[in-house]
Amino acid sequence: MTNSTYETLGQLGQASELPQDPDEAVLETVPNPHRDVDYLVRFTAPEFTSICPVTGQPDFAHLVIDYVAEELLVESKSLKLYLGSFRNHGAFHEDCTVAIAKRLIDAMKPRWLRIGGYWYPRGGIPIDVFWQSGPPPKGLWLPDQGVPSYRGRG
Amino acid sequence: MTNSTYETLGQLGQASELPQDPDEAVLETVPNPHRDVDYLVRFTAPEFTSICPVTGQPDFAHLVIDYVAEELLVESKSLKLYLGSFRNHGAFHEDCTVAIAKRLIDAMKPRWLRIGGYWYPRGGIPIDVFWQSGPPPKGLWLPDQGVPSYRGRG
Amino acid sequence: MTNSTYETLGQLGQASELPQDPDEAVLETVPNPHRDVDYLVRFTAPEFTSICPVTGQPDFAHLVIDYVAEELLVESKSLKLYLGSFRNHGAFHEDCTVAIAKRLIDAMKPRWLRIGGYWYPRGGIPIDVFWQSGPPPKGLWLPDQGVPSYRGRG
Amino acid sequence: MTNSTYETLGQLGQASELPQDPDEAVLETVPNPHRDVDYLVRFTAPEFTSICPVTGQPDFAHLVIDYVAEELLVESKSLKLYLGSFRNHGAFHEDCTVAIAKRLIDAMKPRWLRIGGYWYPRGGIPIDVFWQSGPPPKGLWLPDQGVPSYRGRG
Amino acid sequence: MTNSTYETLGQLGQASELPQDPDEAVLETVPNPHRDVDYLVRFTAPEFTSICPVTGQPDFAHLVIDYVAEELLVESKSLKLYLGSFRNHGAFHEDCTVAIAKRLIDAMKPRWLRIGGYWYPRGGIPIDVFWQSGPPPKGLWLPDQGVPSYRGRG
Amino acid sequence: MTNSTYETLGQLGQASELPQDPDEAVLETVPNPHRDVDYLVRFTAPEFTSICPVTGQPDFAHLVIDYVAEELLVESKSLKLYLGSFRNHGAFHEDCTVAIAKRLIDAMKPRWLRIGGYWYPRGGIPIDVFWQSGPPPKGLWLPDQGVPSYRGRG
Amino acid sequence: MTNSTYETLGQLGQASELPQDPDEAVLETVPNPHRDVDYLVRFTAPEFTSICPVTGQPDFAHLVIDYVAEELLVESKSLKLYLGSFRNHGAFHEDCTVAIAKRLIDAMKPRWLRIGGYWYPRGGIPIDVFWQSGPPPKGLWLPDQGVPSYRGRG
Amino acid sequence: MTNSTYETLGQLGQASELPQDPDEAVLETVPNPHRDVDYLVRFTAPEFTSICPVTGQPDFAHLVIDYVAEELLVESKSLKLYLGSFRNHGAFHEDCTVAIAKRLIDAMKPRWLRIGGYWYPRGGIPIDVFWQSGPPPKGLWLPDQGVPSYRGRG
Amino acid sequence: MTNSTYETLGQLGQASELPQDPDEAVLETVPNPHRDVDYLVRFTAPEFTSICPVTGQPDFAHLVIDYVAEELLVESKSLKLYLGSFRNHGAFHEDCTVAIAKRLIDAMKPRWLRIGGYWYPRGGIPIDVFWQSGPPPKGLWLPDQGVPSYRGRG
Amino acid sequence: MTNSTYETLGQLGQASELPQDPDEAVLETVPNPHRDVDYLVRFTAPEFTSICPVTGQPDFAHLVIDYVAEELLVESKSLKLYLGSFRNHGAFHEDCTVAIAKRLIDAMKPRWLRIGGYWYPRGGIPIDVFWQSGPPPKGLWLPDQGVPSYRGRG
Ligand SMILES: [Ca+2]
Ligand SMILES: [Ca+2]
Ligand SMILES: [Ca+2]
Ligand SMILES: [Ca+2]
Ligand SMILES: [Ca+2]
Ligand SMILES: [Ca+2]
Ligand SMILES: [Ca+2]
Ligand SMILES: [Ca+2]
Ligand SMILES: [Ca+2]
Ligand SMILES: [Ca+2]
Ligand SMILES: [Ca+2]
Ligand SMILES: [Ca+2]
Ligand SMILES: [Ca+2]
Ligand SMILES: [Ca+2]
Ligand SMILES: [Ca+2]
Ligand SMILES: [Ca+2]
Repeated sequence: MTNSTYETLGQLGQASELPQDPDEAVLETVPNPHRDVDYLVRFTAPEFTSICPVTGQPDFAHLVIDYVAEELLVESKSLKLYLGSFRNHGAFHEDCTVAIAKRLIDAMKPRWLRIGGYWYPRGGIPIDVFWQSGPPPKGLWLPDQGVPSYRGRG
Repeated sequence: MTNSTYETLGQLGQASELPQDPDEAVLETVPNPHRDVDYLVRFTAPEFTSICPVTGQPDFAHLVIDYVAEELLVESKSLKLYLGSFRNHGAFHEDCTVAIAKRLIDAMKPRWLRIGGYWYPRGGIPIDVFWQSGPPPKGLWLPDQGVPSYRGRG
Repeated sequence: MTNSTYETLGQLGQASELPQDPDEAVLETVPNPHRDVDYLVRFTAPEFTSICPVTGQPDFAHLVIDYVAEELLVESKSLKLYLGSFRNHGAFHEDCTVAIAKRLIDAMKPRWLRIGGYWYPRGGIPIDVFWQSGPPPKGLWLPDQGVPSYRGRG
Repeated sequence: MTNSTYETLGQLGQASELPQDPDEAVLETVPNPHRDVDYLVRFTAPEFTSICPVTGQPDFAHLVIDYVAEELLVESKSLKLYLGSFRNHGAFHEDCTVAIAKRLIDAMKPRWLRIGGYWYPRGGIPIDVFWQSGPPPKGLWLPDQGVPSYRGRG
Repeated sequence: MTNSTYETLGQLGQASELPQDPDEAVLETVPNPHRDVDYLVRFTAPEFTSICPVTGQPDFAHLVIDYVAEELLVESKSLKLYLGSFRNHGAFHEDCTVAIAKRLIDAMKPRWLRIGGYWYPRGGIPIDVFWQSGPPPKGLWLPDQGVPSYRGRG
Repeated sequence: MTNSTYETLGQLGQASELPQDPDEAVLETVPNPHRDVDYLVRFTAPEFTSICPVTGQPDFAHLVIDYVAEELLVESKSLKLYLGSFRNHGAFHEDCTVAIAKRLIDAMKPRWLRIGGYWYPRGGIPIDVFWQSGPPPKGLWLPDQGVPSYRGRG
Repeated sequence: MTNSTYETLGQLGQASELPQDPDEAVLETVPNPHRDVDYLVRFTAPEFTSICPVTGQPDFAHLVIDYVAEELLVESKSLKLYLGSFRNHGAFHEDCTVAIAKRLIDAMKPRWLRIGGYWYPRGGIPIDVFWQSGPPPKGLWLPDQGVPSYRGRG
Repeated sequence: MTNSTYETLGQLGQASELPQDPDEAVLETVPNPHRDVDYLVRFTAPEFTSICPVTGQPDFAHLVIDYVAEELLVESKSLKLYLGSFRNHGAFHEDCTVAIAKRLIDAMKPRWLRIGGYWYPRGGIPIDVFWQSGPPPKGLWLPDQGVPSYRGRG
Repeated sequence: MTNSTYETLGQLGQASELPQDPDEAVLETVPNPHRDVDYLVRFTAPEFTSICPVTGQPDFAHLVIDYVAEELLVESKSLKLYLGSFRNHGAFHEDCTVAIAKRLIDAMKPRWLRIGGYWYPRGGIPIDVFWQSGPPPKGLWLPDQGVPSYRGRG
Repeated sequence: MTNSTYETLGQLGQASELPQDPDEAVLETVPNPHRDVDYLVRFTAPEFTSICPVTGQPDFAHLVIDYVAEELLVESKSLKLYLGSFRNHGAFHEDCTVAIAKRLIDAMKPRWLRIGGYWYPRGGIPIDVFWQSGPPPKGLWLPDQGVPSYRGRG
């Protein structure tokens, strides 16, 4: 893979403004350099925030995304900007988590993908959301995401 | 999903009194926005308390509930009020944990559900109760609940 | 210390009902068997719950109480019943934590006492309350209470 | 389940002496309130101690017992007294751990049972003993016991 | 303290919009119920986010605020809304952390206050900012904030 | 220090029976090989058990003993047998912890000694007892005992 | 199993010298008291040390051995002496770990055995070695060894 | 295995310069002393660093490599030098991690190999890469790599 | 503070090459926005690497820098580049750690500064280096750096 | 400091045999490059082993040594060989720990030194030994050694 692989990228290494909404964000991709094998890529995004569509209050989550590429990898800076675009966007926990996964599937057409959304507690009770696009590819090595369970106090 | 989805809800965003008993609590539901896929929703409720039916003394538990929705999601504020309704209700550990799961199944008719009840020690020996409604749906991603084992002291 | 030391106790070793309110609870005491020295007694009470006086919703806390006895020790079962008596009592976090300490001081007249109240989060932000009755006695060994800080998720 | 369920119990809610030997201990049972489902009950007993039959020195263990009930649950106070009856009884680590499991099986005839015995180190080398009565029931949810491995120092 | 203590509050128990900017936020106060003693109140706010004034990118922090009240306590919902008001506001790490403390001092005139700002890493290097308004009151019990140090990976 | 230093010891390297009571136990000592300096010796004894004098039920504790020797060190096997002698002895938590310290002071006449008793929970509330014989010697290095606080569940 | 079971043992309860070499060490066995079932015995040996055959420098490891007995259990004091016999013996990490397992298989003819060797780092890179004698017996309960991964610093 | 096994090694026990580039590094091998069995060798390398090919900035990773040998083991000092050779070499996260695994496969022709690359965060989002050469050999004991998930702050 | 504060900065927001040597690196500063108070700034740099001047092998460290500003803050991107400049520079552990602190003192003239260097183990024994420029300013809040001690394995 | 500083060293960068006894070990020193300041050097040695002079059995310890240099630093390879020389040497826990500190003081004449010896348990009770040569230099930054307390099991 040479540097020219990245010549079409519009965001990497550039000063980029945060997109106003997920619809405005552009998920960019680069070719998968190891298409001959099934390997797992994991992104851990502890800085996710969105808006509750009913109350207008901010929500926060720790997100972990695992995928196996087909032809394309998602470029990580564009992923960061996409996730940042939820900052002023209304979205429920269950809906939002699964929707991010579907958007990434649209952009990359991966062999397989899953997302874990670990939301900060509301009313004393946090919600976690877990989804995968199907059974993982055979022979894939897929470690646990290892996010600690919520413990309250003490 | 628009906000009108929530127009029938009686408790969300309202000042609500704690129901006097589990029978009085109303579990409200909203449509599942991603019925096309099997995803897991996890609630962690570290603030559960009930009454021992023999001694009248309070009991405490850390509960974790996992489910896969069919048509309905349980609305989280109504869940919180339902769990709070055990506050002055007599219930044994094994019985109570499984009964909560059955009540949620009645309300949501989920594809699958499980509950872990991690009770505070009595007589130096805590009891944990684990139940699932059946084998998990194939291809479901189902992380461990990750609640630490009880360690006594030292 | 002989068993007769305990003959006046009304709650220890008896089936006891939970007092309806802190005012009804009786804190019983026993003679301090080691009045000649300053030693620290620590109670850890992870099962505390009260009611928010504004919303009527339950609140939860993990409480740790440290004291140095003068003439009296608090009998632990009566302490447990006293703490249990807040179950249906309205009390704010800051007020309630300090008030428990003052009540214990009234009952025992200890050389010194402190309380740490580690409350479960509300609105994403837990409150901790720490108070001691004065500077600790000179030469007292006073370990940290060691309750983990709140971490949210991730 | 009504309170009359417990009327035949001889130890619960009573002042009970520690049995002198495991043979003298009585394991009491109550009806399983959820016979229609396979759920797991876990007891964690960090206060187990017995005597080495060769040297007469005390041994200590942290025990965790998991089972799936058939008709009966073991009543937890009688379990506590049974475990306490090993206090002055000679028993080797491997033998004792498995024997406790077999006794519980005799008393409850459970669908399935396992025991983990985590013994304190002797000669710098702790012994753990793990046994289950057979493959766990299909569809049972069976979390790891999660007892930390021994680490020596550092 | 009666409920009338809270009658002048404009935000507690109301649906409240997030203020557009820290200047618009109103920090409300209530009378300190225990003015006769020095006790510590700790708020842990793991959901803080602001905007980098140079790049426009979001920043995240875990904030812990400790204070000893004089006449007033800060009302916790108004604190939550004040912290939320930084969501679209540009502020540097060092400046912002200390400025929040100064604003709270203006609103409450506490006997003493400190803030710990634990910022998420940028360029692989997180910044923490620690400030207190002066030496803590004599005899105050002031536990460590106990936020884990940043560890990178491995 | 030569091996002859140990010739008077009656328990080390011998098969020894557990004393029936603390009064029967013999605490043996050896000369302090480094009398010219103040150094700390710490014993950690996680295998302590005694009997509740009121109920006859077993109690358990994790004990940590720190001391600075004068002329004598306590021989560790005799310490083990002394602690083991509480196995069938009735003793309350506060009394017993301080009494062990006093007995060690009688036997060794150390420059300084402290004990931390971390008792397993009864009624959901563990008791810790901390005592030292006086302010530690100046210039002594005295690390925290570092025993984790009790956390209940979750 | 009676005490006579142990009459043929030459090392248990005796003062024993450390064997000079693994070849000189004698692994003693006792009858398996529960031959009717498959249970797991785990030894954790955090005090293993050997010599690098090339450089003569000491190596250190934390070893964990799991096995399912057939007719025989290994006597734990003889195991301790066998492991201690590597103290002045040259052996490479990979070779030594597997060789210990093979020797134990020779001595006990167990139904199944595995060993985990967690070696201290050399050149910044620790080596772990994991081996099992075959697939574990069906229906065996086999917990993870749970030794933490190496983390370097930070 | 005698010391002559190592006579052909050019780097072990020698002062060796860091290779300028992965292509210059020589992976040396030694015969597998236990070819008759499938055992796992794990290297943990927390000191990996390379250069971002686009920005020229350093990247850091914690690498864990697991393999089952066929005829050859990789000599650990040559592995260390090979990994060190990435110090001034440009390589992307996904590409680099998989490429190291492929190079090791070329050098050793192992029965099976996998690599976990745990990269330090860039833009707040770390990337992990996981690959294995195929399904693990049947009957192989393959523990989890146990590297903690990234947690940000708090 | 306005953005013009940063107009003289040459590295922030620019693509910057890693300096070839610490002498070439430029530490840039910005005005301290809160000169009226003593607050602490902490940088955690887990990605430090240098070269051993004797063997030419890479060394790694986790560095934590604490300071109290006078007129100037160090700009964090220039700090990152300065630390990165040790990548191909020879420096011993003790010397290098203290030298970094002295260089920062030259650049900022802070009221006070300290550095903790936590180096990865060599020969099984890691070295930590701790230095501060003098006693910390009175009334400064100075939390522990909280880097875990090295534990080897197990 | 130039490389010539190290020209007189006899062990660094050489193949060195382990000394047969502490008396034979040579502690080498190098000039302190930062004599103008008081900084702390910490060595963590988790691989210490010696022989019990009474029983001939091996003992193990995790040692942490802190010092402030005057004219000399101890060279770390010679320290490693010195510590390794206890491998076949008889020494009691309390005596040995303090003796190592005294030997280092003889060799370096440091401004100040302390040692923490964390010994593996014997008879279920580990011994820790802590000594410092005097009160630490004023203004020295001296972090806790942070070795976890012993916990037994569970
Ligand atoms: Ca390819
Ligand atoms: Ca809790
Ligand atoms: Ca859908
Ligand atoms: Ca007394
Ligand atoms: Ca977080
Ligand atoms: Ca039923
Ligand atoms: Ca032991
Ligand atoms: Ca008052
Ligand atoms: Ca001396
Ligand atoms: Ca690291
Ligand atoms: Ca072979
Ligand atoms: Ca970053
Ligand atoms: Ca200012
Ligand atoms: Ca260890
Ligand atoms: Ca100098
Ligand atoms: Ca324990």
